[in-house]
Amino acid sequence: MTLDQRAAVCVLGTGLIGGSLLRAAVAAGYPAYGYNRSDSGADAARRDGFDVSTDLSAVLRRAAGEDALLVVAVPMPAVEQLLAEIAEIAPNCPVTDVVSIKRPVVDAVRKHGLAANFVGGHPMTGTSESGWAATDPELFRDAVWAVGVDEGTRVEPWERVVRLALDCGSVVVPVVADEHDQAVARISHLPHVLAEALAAAGAEGGALALGLAAGSFRDGTRVAGTAPDLVRAICEPNATALGQVLDETIAALVTARDALRADGSLGEVVEAGYRGRTAYEQRTRWEITGIVPGAADWLTELHRAGQRGGVLRAL
Amino acid sequence: MTLDQRAAVCVLGTGLIGGSLLRAAVAAGYPAYGYNRSDSGADAARRDGFDVSTDLSAVLRRAAGEDALLVVAVPMPAVEQLLAEIAEIAPNCPVTDVVSIKRPVVDAVRKHGLAANFVGGHPMTGTSESGWAATDPELFRDAVWAVGVDEGTRVEPWERVVRLALDCGSVVVPVVADEHDQAVARISHLPHVLAEALAAAGAEGGALALGLAAGSFRDGTRVAGTAPDLVRAICEPNATALGQVLDETIAALVTARDALRADGSLGEVVEAGYRGRTAYEQRTRWEITGIVPGAADWLTELHRAGQRGGVLRAL
Repeated sequence: MTLDQRAAVCVLGTGLIGGSLLRAAVAAGYPAYGYNRSDSGADAARRDGFDVSTDLSAVLRRAAGEDALLVVAVPMPAVEQLLAEIAEIAPNCPVTDVVSIKRPVVDAVRKHGLAANFVGGHPMTGTSESGWAATDPELFRDAVWAVGVDEGTRVEPWERVVRLALDCGSVVVPVVADEHDQAVARISHLPHVLAEALAAAGAEGGALALGLAAGSFRDGTRVAGTAPDLVRAICEPNATALGQVLDETIAALVTARDALRADGSLGEVVEAGYRGRTAYEQRTRWEITGIVPGAADWLTELHRAGQRGGVLRAL
Repeated sequence: MTLDQRAAVCVLGTGLIGGSLLRAAVAAGYPAYGYNRSDSGADAARRDGFDVSTDLSAVLRRAAGEDALLVVAVPMPAVEQLLAEIAEIAPNCPVTDVVSIKRPVVDAVRKHGLAANFVGGHPMTGTSESGWAATDPELFRDAVWAVGVDEGTRVEPWERVVRLALDCGSVVVPVVADEHDQAVARISHLPHVLAEALAAAGAEGGALALGLAAGSFRDGTRVAGTAPDLVRAICEPNATALGQVLDETIAALVTARDALRADGSLGEVVEAGYRGRTAYEQRTRWEITGIVPGAADWLTELHRAGQRGGVLRAL
């Protein structure tokens, strides 16, 4: 297992998440290198002592020769083109990703014939910053890292992805693609859309409103400081699930507004929100143990454990 | 002015805001004391060395004898009854308040014949905690404190309120009641309602969604941890202005959802939100100078300066 454990990692895209992963992998003892599309991003990484090239073909040939774990770390709109290159040059490498949604990635992976070696991933971390300058090897410390347990997942690439996530300091939540996308619509993409709507409504109040703004506005709009293109790249590919949760949220707000007009009460939303926040604060990340990768029903058991809030802290 | 500057302050209600104000006033050298309805709250304050009684009549008689500045620091639903007692026992004292909306307070003050000595106030600070245990003399440090400049405001009580706010470490935004209420609907009450809706939507996703939640959900739902009764007491009295800004926000979310369904784009809300957050981060609190309280048009000039983002840092 020693060889396996520290097998090479090849990060494709060294922005905030990919670049931080490259730093974290190197810090954890992995032979790790990467590719970045822009000269300026690759130069910045090289100046900090990391092995990052703008020559995708050369990087993929090297990865193929070393059986490196490929980490797709580009925004969703750039995923297809990158997978096409991988299918061409390094079709037998294990592949994971750090994209914020899973169904479109899984579909693209299948289309390019890479499904047998693919295990989806999504570290639930980030900042409103972007690019190499914002990278941090500690970004994944104590974070949650979603790792795919979709039907057909193979043990060997799955263990490599889980081990990398654990070595970066995260805990692992096993999840299937569609349930991942529905969950992140609620706890990542909806927060972005509501923050944007709140920031816009505040600014409509002009200098007086923004001058009076305090903690609730500051925290409620924090992620609206994220670059618009990045917000779109994160949220829009999850249109179906996000649309459903927006339906729910709009209905809740309409009910609250109508109650406010009818009898001066905000109605149920206040209690429901308080219960929700309390459930969030009181959630426990219980450790999943005793499921042996490759044993009968291992994927189903991991899937069910993840649904119930379980996390992996060790392999 | 020395006598005036440190004239007694009488805080009526020693919860988070009132209790913190009592602490801050004492720390700033004011002779200050208070009233609290509950024995437990008053006991807790006394144990910490503060002069707090549950005998409202006695406290108001003392305040009347000392020409103390009365600070109404009870939730909106309790304001009317308190003003009735003030009108009965201490009708000539200057009166201010720290309630989160101004129009209903101003109307109640008029109804009880206290308008001549009233100057509305609203320190824009707080936490999701409540009660004496959460009080903090530094709560107002570097905060914004809205102070009324409504037509008919008299110089003497106005200066006493402004001086108290400045002595507690805040800057003062001059504002009229209706514009205050419209502004706080946008930057305080809407954030509460959206946080509740977001927390409820997240919890609908069960243990998986709450387990995957990271920074955007944590910050976006922070104020949903506030006790529901307190949220209602803060938001519901501002039903008209809050209803209008909910209309706006619902319309923006419907537009975003429809665009997402139609062409996979979130549309304008992302850009508008980014512009709004940027405007918030770049707002400047320029200092209002050269307006002499009591000079011609002083209230109008302060009102206009506040609309444009000006603050008072000194008298």
